Amino acid sequence: MFEGFVYVRACLYPEGVVLPAGDAAVSVWDRGFVFGDGVYEVVRAYGGRWFRMREHLRRLRRSLEETRIGFDEVDVVEKAAGALQRVQELEEADGLLYVQITRGAAPRSHAFPDPPAEPTVLVALTAVPDFSEEVEKGVAVVTREDFRWHRCDIKTIALQGNVLALQEAKEAGAKECLFVRDGAATEGSHSNFFGVKDGVLRTHPADRRILAGITRECVLELAREAGVSAEEAAIGREELAGLEEAFLTATSFEVVPVVQMDGRPIGDGKPGPVTRRLQEAFRECVRRETGGA
Amino acid sequence: MFEGFVYVRACLYPEGVVLPAGDAAVSVWDRGFVFGDGVYEVVRAYGGRWFRMREHLRRLRRSLEETRIGFDEVDVVEKAAGALQRVQELEEADGLLYVQITRGAAPRSHAFPDPPAEPTVLVALTAVPDFSEEVEKGVAVVTREDFRWHRCDIKTIALQGNVLALQEAKEAGAKECLFVRDGAATEGSHSNFFGVKDGVLRTHPADRRILAGITRECVLELAREAGVSAEEAAIGREELAGLEEAFLTATSFEVVPVVQMDGRPIGDGKPGPVTRRLQEAFRECVRRETGGA
Repeated sequence: MFEGFVYVRACLYPEGVVLPAGDAAVSVWDRGFVFGDGVYEVVRAYGGRWFRMREHLRRLRRSLEETRIGFDEVDVVEKAAGALQRVQELEEADGLLYVQITRGAAPRSHAFPDPPAEPTVLVALTAVPDFSEEVEKGVAVVTREDFRWHRCDIKTIALQGNVLALQEAKEAGAKECLFVRDGAATEGSHSNFFGVKDGVLRTHPADRRILAGITRECVLELAREAGVSAEEAAIGREELAGLEEAFLTATSFEVVPVVQMDGRPIGDGKPGPVTRRLQEAFRECVRRETGGA
Repeated sequence: MFEGFVYVRACLYPEGVVLPAGDAAVSVWDRGFVFGDGVYEVVRAYGGRWFRMREHLRRLRRSLEETRIGFDEVDVVEKAAGALQRVQELEEADGLLYVQITRGAAPRSHAFPDPPAEPTVLVALTAVPDFSEEVEKGVAVVTREDFRWHRCDIKTIALQGNVLALQEAKEAGAKECLFVRDGAATEGSHSNFFGVKDGVLRTHPADRRILAGITRECVLELAREAGVSAEEAAIGREELAGLEEAFLTATSFEVVPVVQMDGRPIGDGKPGPVTRRLQEAFRECVRRETGGA
């Protein structure tokens, strides 16, 4: 069921090991398992080269600081990533790196373990799912009230709310759920959200209501370079139906047009010109920075 | 580091096993570990007999339904509990049973695994920590804005918000954090909250903002039996400083007086008469229902 290899450093493997994904285990008392007490990152490789690894590691460090998980060996992640590329013969392949750090294993008690436990490190490298249809044709989304916690800027593994929301969206025939909080669109369950209104590209400011996506940031840079007016300004619920274009961004699927929302078409129901321009600019940026794609 | 035994049924042990707590492991791809995608219960035994096990199992079933985890073998939990009592020779002892069910192990993807994975079951039985000082003298709490998700009625394992809040409270010299949402006190990070105002006992209604605690419900019943006026009505933030008494309830520590809030005494800074009466009534109820304590 589980393909490939993973790197794990945990109380069962204190030195860190690379082993088949199906064999890798953590203690039932890992705080990741009993409290969702950890953080994560996903990094994409193009032709074996990591896209904006430095930015991902910076965000990982921030998540660790905000959750006060004492782990400062972020270089372990890069070494594990390289080891997984070698053992899986993916040195020149596309791939998605999954990195998770938890507060470690300790007898279950809500407060931090004292003395601290050794953080648990999980790194996995898997193939990139085929998102070409979504990228080309666009997807449907459904909106729902954002019922998650109020620190969505932290890339926590405590994602049960995201899981439930995405599942409901899927069952409603959509590919993503778009959260709305206090009357404004925030983000998707595992993506950032952009809309075009009166020719201006808008996305929610990177405050505590959304994750500051690496692809989101890149798209904002590219929009400015391309002369597209772009603002970090929330899109009100009442503005959603009138958007000219909309798209989602994520490390895994890059830039995916939103062509339908709550059963109604966005614009003319096809990916719009700003979206297409930014998809192309993003691919060009990836080529420039990694030589791959 | 880990004492005693646990029962685990997971992809590594599909038939279910009782094994030393330090050896028990789950797949790194368990959705409990990567998404906090599970629910739990804590049940207390007095003299080896479970207090209100039926109510705990009913709540567990509700949490499973609300999170749509397809697990209907709740009898497995009772059997595992008995097995753990025997193997640890705790058939006549006090103890805390920890029960956790997750959506099982599957390749990481937010939506539910399709076909569904076999849910992971973890059951552990540990000694009851000594809460006698807290019960006798009372504790300090600090308030903070409730920044958790909006389904606090589900006993989710995705508890990173609770963990961070309790840790901050602890570092502020308090034993618990009291959450306040939209101007009203909701509950603690791992307890329910009661206050006495103008002689009336009040606690937040059991809606989506709090967990419907088993001890909370029991205390409400006992208050009515004892002729104490009790209301399920939220206590406003501005009313907190003027409370005559306050206390916390939880399965683990029962009824613990709150004698200080945000550095200021509650009432005269000592456990009050309503609190004492309900502590005694609770112990009497436990004796009546279990023959223990």
